[in-house]
Amino acid sequence: MTTAPLSPTPRTTATRLRDRMVDDRAELHRFLRDALVAHLGVVVNGHPLVLPTAFGLDLDGPDDGGSLYLHASVAAGWFGSAGGAAVCVTVTELDGLVVGRSGFHHSMNYRSAVVLGTSRTVRDPAERERALDLIVDHMIPGRSTTLRAATRKELAATAVLAVPLAEASLKVRVGGPDDEPEDIRAGVWGGHIPLRRVAAAPVPDEDAAGQLPVDVRRRAASLR
Amino acid sequence: MTTAPLSPTPRTTATRLRDRMVDDRAELHRFLRDALVAHLGVVVNGHPLVLPTAFGLDLDGPDDGGSLYLHASVAAGWFGSAGGAAVCVTVTELDGLVVGRSGFHHSMNYRSAVVLGTSRTVRDPAERERALDLIVDHMIPGRSTTLRAATRKELAATAVLAVPLAEASLKVRVGGPDDEPEDIRAGVWGGHIPLRRVAAAPVPDEDAAGQLPVDVRRRAASLR
Repeated sequence: MTTAPLSPTPRTTATRLRDRMVDDRAELHRFLRDALVAHLGVVVNGHPLVLPTAFGLDLDGPDDGGSLYLHASVAAGWFGSAGGAAVCVTVTELDGLVVGRSGFHHSMNYRSAVVLGTSRTVRDPAERERALDLIVDHMIPGRSTTLRAATRKELAATAVLAVPLAEASLKVRVGGPDDEPEDIRAGVWGGHIPLRRVAAAPVPDEDAAGQLPVDVRRRAASLR
Repeated sequence: MTTAPLSPTPRTTATRLRDRMVDDRAELHRFLRDALVAHLGVVVNGHPLVLPTAFGLDLDGPDDGGSLYLHASVAAGWFGSAGGAAVCVTVTELDGLVVGRSGFHHSMNYRSAVVLGTSRTVRDPAERERALDLIVDHMIPGRSTTLRAATRKELAATAVLAVPLAEASLKVRVGGPDDEPEDIRAGVWGGHIPLRRVAAAPVPDEDAAGQLPVDVRRRAASLR
């Protein structure tokens, strides 16, 4: 696993205990399973382009280190140009605001994975369907098995990319500020504000039939 | 304002009412004031690199359309290589999981701004200090005025970039899925799970002196 430089609060260096590179693939996998949004970076005509996207994971997938799957409309040119190209997929969850005793030591608590690699356009029909199911199940675990199969038209409209998880790093910051001793002695307040993502009760469509599905209820409950 | 392609849930096209490009700078500004984490995309040796970072805003700043400020350690090589270079700054907040009646119509609700441009290394001492204050105040409004000034050493250790807000787009998706009529008629459940970021009570450091500052209390309360 490489240790790509990663600096959500760049003035805090990685040598500090509270802001560390994690050299543990199990922890990387745990984080990726937990996180919801990826930012995909590609180079289009020499210019970087970064777009948010859902993702799915197959840790036993065919790519080196396992596969991270992304999808987009075949009409999305930027996504097409990402196929077979150098990409960076960054997944970040914000866990808190770090209130330092100086501006310099303000920071954020977070977990952030950076995956660097060359993407692969997924063409095999079985792998494409599996990847799309994994993306749905990443949002709502178990959901894909409750749904009808994708139609040929839907599959034809969807591009799927795989990114190997081989070259990935995880950086995590936790806790309070790393303040200067003189600011602590001066009696300035320091601490942090924990943040987390929570779900409200699921909202049925006006024309939604029947009871709330168990998988949707469980997903919302997991984010309470 | 350009309308860069933006597809967090790429199979949902921008022609749909629930997934729209916003052509309103006031709404872009409102969103950027509200959001907490940016993803900065740069090209390093031909490879895209995307890293999460805090940011600050000066809508009346010296750059075309106003200035978005980023900072990092001067030791962060990737950030140095972003100075004067083509960059993409993408700011995303996830607002919900969209539970479609088919895999194809699963999606996410979100707000996402994409800022494309050439960054400017900020060298003017007054602008540098102002930018750093704005980054702190973006996290905790009003906080910078309560803190000691940055030391020369701290300022020397910090690189500051400005990105013009001139070329920016905002995309917003809200509401439930855009399902196929036959799936609705078939009685499949559809809806969405609203998500939001909430703060827990501020956590003082063990050696934190005095009462919780008013600005920190207000910030936490604004995220309840």
